[in-house]
Amino acid sequence: MAETPSVTIVPPSRELLEKIADTLRFVSADQVQKANSGHPGMPMGAAEIAAVLLTRLKIDFRDAKWINRDRFVLSAGHASALLYSMLCLQGFLTLDDLRDFRQLGSRTPGHPEMDATPGVDASTGPLGAGIGMATGMAAAERMLAETYNTPKFDVIDHFTYVLAGDGCLMEGVAYEAMSLAGHLGLGRLIVVYDSNRVSIDGGTDLTFGEDVGARAAAMGWRVWEVDGHNVEELGAALDQAREDLARPSLVIARTTIAKGCPNKAGKSSSHGAPIGIEELAAAKAGRGWPAEDFHIPAEVSDYFDVRRGEWLAMRQEWNQLFALYAKKHHALCRELQRILAGELPKQWKNAVAPFPIEKPLATRAAGNQVMNQLGAAIPELVGGSADLTPANLTEIKSGCNPDFINSGFFQGRNLHFGVREHAMGCFTNGLALHGGFIPYCATFLVFHDYMRPTLRLAALMRIRSIFVHTHDAFMVGEDGPTHQPVEQLASLRAIPRIQVWRPADANETIYAWQAALERKDGPTAICLSRQELPVLDRSSLAPARETLKGMYVLQPEGEEQAEILLIATGGDVPLALATAAALRERGRTTRVASAPCLEAFKLQAEGYRKKILPKRLRKRLVIEAGIVQGWEGILGDAGLFIGLDDFGHSGKPAELAEKLGFTVPAILAKIDSAGW
Amino acid sequence: MAETPSVTIVPPSRELLEKIADTLRFVSADQVQKANSGHPGMPMGAAEIAAVLLTRLKIDFRDAKWINRDRFVLSAGHASALLYSMLCLQGFLTLDDLRDFRQLGSRTPGHPEMDATPGVDASTGPLGAGIGMATGMAAAERMLAETYNTPKFDVIDHFTYVLAGDGCLMEGVAYEAMSLAGHLGLGRLIVVYDSNRVSIDGGTDLTFGEDVGARAAAMGWRVWEVDGHNVEELGAALDQAREDLARPSLVIARTTIAKGCPNKAGKSSSHGAPIGIEELAAAKAGRGWPAEDFHIPAEVSDYFDVRRGEWLAMRQEWNQLFALYAKKHHALCRELQRILAGELPKQWKNAVAPFPIEKPLATRAAGNQVMNQLGAAIPELVGGSADLTPANLTEIKSGCNPDFINSGFFQGRNLHFGVREHAMGCFTNGLALHGGFIPYCATFLVFHDYMRPTLRLAALMRIRSIFVHTHDAFMVGEDGPTHQPVEQLASLRAIPRIQVWRPADANETIYAWQAALERKDGPTAICLSRQELPVLDRSSLAPARETLKGMYVLQPEGEEQAEILLIATGGDVPLALATAAALRERGRTTRVASAPCLEAFKLQAEGYRKKILPKRLRKRLVIEAGIVQGWEGILGDAGLFIGLDDFGHSGKPAELAEKLGFTVPAILAKIDSAGW
Repeated sequence: MAETPSVTIVPPSRELLEKIADTLRFVSADQVQKANSGHPGMPMGAAEIAAVLLTRLKIDFRDAKWINRDRFVLSAGHASALLYSMLCLQGFLTLDDLRDFRQLGSRTPGHPEMDATPGVDASTGPLGAGIGMATGMAAAERMLAETYNTPKFDVIDHFTYVLAGDGCLMEGVAYEAMSLAGHLGLGRLIVVYDSNRVSIDGGTDLTFGEDVGARAAAMGWRVWEVDGHNVEELGAALDQAREDLARPSLVIARTTIAKGCPNKAGKSSSHGAPIGIEELAAAKAGRGWPAEDFHIPAEVSDYFDVRRGEWLAMRQEWNQLFALYAKKHHALCRELQRILAGELPKQWKNAVAPFPIEKPLATRAAGNQVMNQLGAAIPELVGGSADLTPANLTEIKSGCNPDFINSGFFQGRNLHFGVREHAMGCFTNGLALHGGFIPYCATFLVFHDYMRPTLRLAALMRIRSIFVHTHDAFMVGEDGPTHQPVEQLASLRAIPRIQVWRPADANETIYAWQAALERKDGPTAICLSRQELPVLDRSSLAPARETLKGMYVLQPEGEEQAEILLIATGGDVPLALATAAALRERGRTTRVASAPCLEAFKLQAEGYRKKILPKRLRKRLVIEAGIVQGWEGILGDAGLFIGLDDFGHSGKPAELAEKLGFTVPAILAKIDSAGW
Repeated sequence: MAETPSVTIVPPSRELLEKIADTLRFVSADQVQKANSGHPGMPMGAAEIAAVLLTRLKIDFRDAKWINRDRFVLSAGHASALLYSMLCLQGFLTLDDLRDFRQLGSRTPGHPEMDATPGVDASTGPLGAGIGMATGMAAAERMLAETYNTPKFDVIDHFTYVLAGDGCLMEGVAYEAMSLAGHLGLGRLIVVYDSNRVSIDGGTDLTFGEDVGARAAAMGWRVWEVDGHNVEELGAALDQAREDLARPSLVIARTTIAKGCPNKAGKSSSHGAPIGIEELAAAKAGRGWPAEDFHIPAEVSDYFDVRRGEWLAMRQEWNQLFALYAKKHHALCRELQRILAGELPKQWKNAVAPFPIEKPLATRAAGNQVMNQLGAAIPELVGGSADLTPANLTEIKSGCNPDFINSGFFQGRNLHFGVREHAMGCFTNGLALHGGFIPYCATFLVFHDYMRPTLRLAALMRIRSIFVHTHDAFMVGEDGPTHQPVEQLASLRAIPRIQVWRPADANETIYAWQAALERKDGPTAICLSRQELPVLDRSSLAPARETLKGMYVLQPEGEEQAEILLIATGGDVPLALATAAALRERGRTTRVASAPCLEAFKLQAEGYRKKILPKRLRKRLVIEAGIVQGWEGILGDAGLFIGLDDFGHSGKPAELAEKLGFTVPAILAKIDSAGW
């Protein structure tokens, strides 16, 4: 597949590699010591791994976002000092950055943060997630390559490396991701497992007795086991791993945590606290290393001076290749450039036709139509479901590459994630991090809980991952409380920087998707109904484009004298309209607002917000099939809430609505007893 | 270990077992068909497995909670119809119950719910969780057995069976739990894997290509692979599995989903919707089965009439054994009876001494002392951490069995869960479900997200699991935003039925633990600080026992004329007190309330709540290192909130407090600009 680049890099000698390793080891320990905070054990133990990886990585230190760089994910994010040492030798960071380790506002925070540090490909810290994100990155590489590369132009052609520790390998998300990677045959994914057999509680024999290599092999991985302090064994394994493009690779590197420390080597006490000035001095002396802080030997800095030249030459060669590619494959290249820039195609919005009012439609079904219309116009929209495709209705059957990706086949745009919600979220984030895609993934809203850490990471990293959550209310019915979301809308909205949409009908669904696609700086959750909903008749209600404002007056537009304000979201809007009608029959004046996205509403100008929620209008009734949490600020002291405060029940949707008070008579009774 | 009981049960013949299987198959399909809702595929495909399991299970159909029953967890909860068919043949349910399948208020809800149905050992539906809970149950069995059995009295001596599907095995939580079970050597845990290779999206070849048996073997499991429709192969594998008491067992049963259906067998379309009247009629005809609904052949009902007699005899034999045990081992038996009843020992509260005010103490450190004092008095308090023992400070070193449980050794009360938060939560729930323990587990508050589904299940099942979440604020400092909770307090409180405690000092920590232990009908989360906090001087403040009320006036008690009410939780209470002092210096009158548990406060009488939050006192200022969500109802229209609305930063705690506005001057400025 990949052509051998003409800029060939001679790997450094064993002696030099070992010196690079010691440089990484002690510069990392120095960071922790100077900050008097951090994790020195793994950086010192994995220094040889880092040295061997570092010299093999394809990067451009002047362009951290170069699309064809090798990706490197430090899944064991607590070893951040090691990553920063690598980035320093590569040229992304300075020694002054390292001296600022863990200080407020520095480029070297406690755990890797991609927006704080050039050259960091993913924010890590929550264990195992890095393996999951790397799986998505490695798939993204192949998906782009198979679509955009041409016989003589391997413009996308890189590896994705992960450095993981015992903790990562213990996490379920790493298992899920590795199982998926093995199934897909992600041959350019190489995980180096720093197997130091020590975790915070002590030796891994306390709890982690399994044969990790055999487990990985059972999942279709190629496995090596090497001495992780032997740079030649490590190098040979990595080179073989790079040759096997059919299977992902796991290099199990047996290491000693805090290698080189006379007293703390091999001990869990070296994991999460500075090893101490004396111990560090003794470790340096033991390796014949100068005592000074942040020492970089001349041979090492000379080597990287040369290496940086080679890195630039490699990049220039790619630039030339890409320039030729642009000439020869003009249209393909323009599309590739567009998707890499994260720009949507021109007139993409025209792809979507408004829904007619005649036929009621679940918003999940509307979402399916929207995704398919958009999918024809936006080839970079890719994704899938955690084994709920026919229920989430998230398959894109139109436009280019409508197939499903499967073992070794990457031309599809649809993915089967299996029943692996957590890895699905990580994988989706990995696609977004890689670039070239607007990824989505789907499961039932209630199972958002299984993948919650990935929404948080997406928000923290400000990436455009889209989480489709269908079956968004107790109206799922007979499947019962384990399948009925109650607290999920609130807990989703609790995550900073996320936007949570719950469209009221098919036409609001169009705008929810539009907002998600246009949002470049954060993730979106789109919550959709299982049950059919009427398509609101916009001839008598506000136009659907108002959806984008997050909350808007649906009925009657411009009514200033209303005494009761009804606010609802998603499938509860029809009930609000029906309640308003009943109130009008009683001679009351009402205003009904649809609130598809509270976060988007908060971004509106104050004037607009005050118009929608006028101070004088205190009789506010909110209807949402969830908990009150998150609504109290809008409800104010005088408001009424129609919602849930306990789990649901197994039964027919209509019977549940009756039991839970989601009917017009029940709401009217509540209004009466409030004395409105 | 286990003695062979003298009531030996002759397994039914192959022909009879096959008839039992067909009974289960069609009675299950009939339930789904009658409800016109549910999942017939797996019940029809796993009918032989269920038949073989059913005849081997040790139960007492008149006492669903008998402590020495075999546990059976249907991890694939969507196959609930199969479970209900089994329970009907066992005698727990009637045919009328089955006819009520999935109806509101019935004993046969859509997914198994332990409080709705006698004989259901765990609520399931979220995939994989059942394997995790069963792991905890199997450990509970050994932990009780090794402490309470005596040479001639194996009063605790049962198996834990799981029926799981492809979806369960794909979930990361199942991997984590199986890895832990393999490590611990839970030999009485037997998982039967209904490997029908079909999931909702289609064949598992779409996404699940791994060798599950090899993976399990790599984790220390003994593995069988059998024809899942061959009752003899199944029986032989189960019998061998029961003999191997050193390793958990995985019986991979290759089955055909919807076995017997002429058109839908082997197809994913049979998974989640009724197979249809005609198809079901054809399936029955194909097996020579009467067309009538809910048919139970005479041989089958005769067999179970006899079998129920044997079950009763088996129970009576155990009763006799237990009566002798009670005589011979009086004290041991009394303790066992007490812990099985879930009653705390007398005077358990006396074990805890109040903390002196001299020495500031992180609440996690206070928690450690409380747990150790309680641990000496309450032997059933057991648990551990997901590899953060020295950080969570949750090891119990006092009282009986202070060791750590490890491979084959179950006399300890402490557990190393490894970096497996999700399985840890399931395991903890499994201990609580089994009976005999008050289990706790621990991780950082921010990593609550990794185990969130288990808190939801604990709440749904109303069990006494205790979740200790330390490092409860941005004050964790340099570890940065991936490690700093922001939205977690809100998202925890969002879960119905849970109680979330965030004690303000060491002495409030005592009462938080006390409340968690006394709460018999639901889980508790205890959120504790990493940073040191002053021990509040109760000579000038309200007594610490007020903590139990959830919110109370700390200072000044009984002050009626205060114009500003400051409310804070946990580590933010000292800041509220300091702010109040500064306001008093300005001549303002204040009242400071500590709010360690909003849920406990909601349970107080209205009069008390109104006293704490008087209507007239509208200038309410809440300080909590989290988001405003959940506080707005208390803040009211006029309140002010000191909290976070975005992720944290890596830096020194004091610098972060400054940056995020958690200082007296910043709060005073906010009060000023509000015009208070």
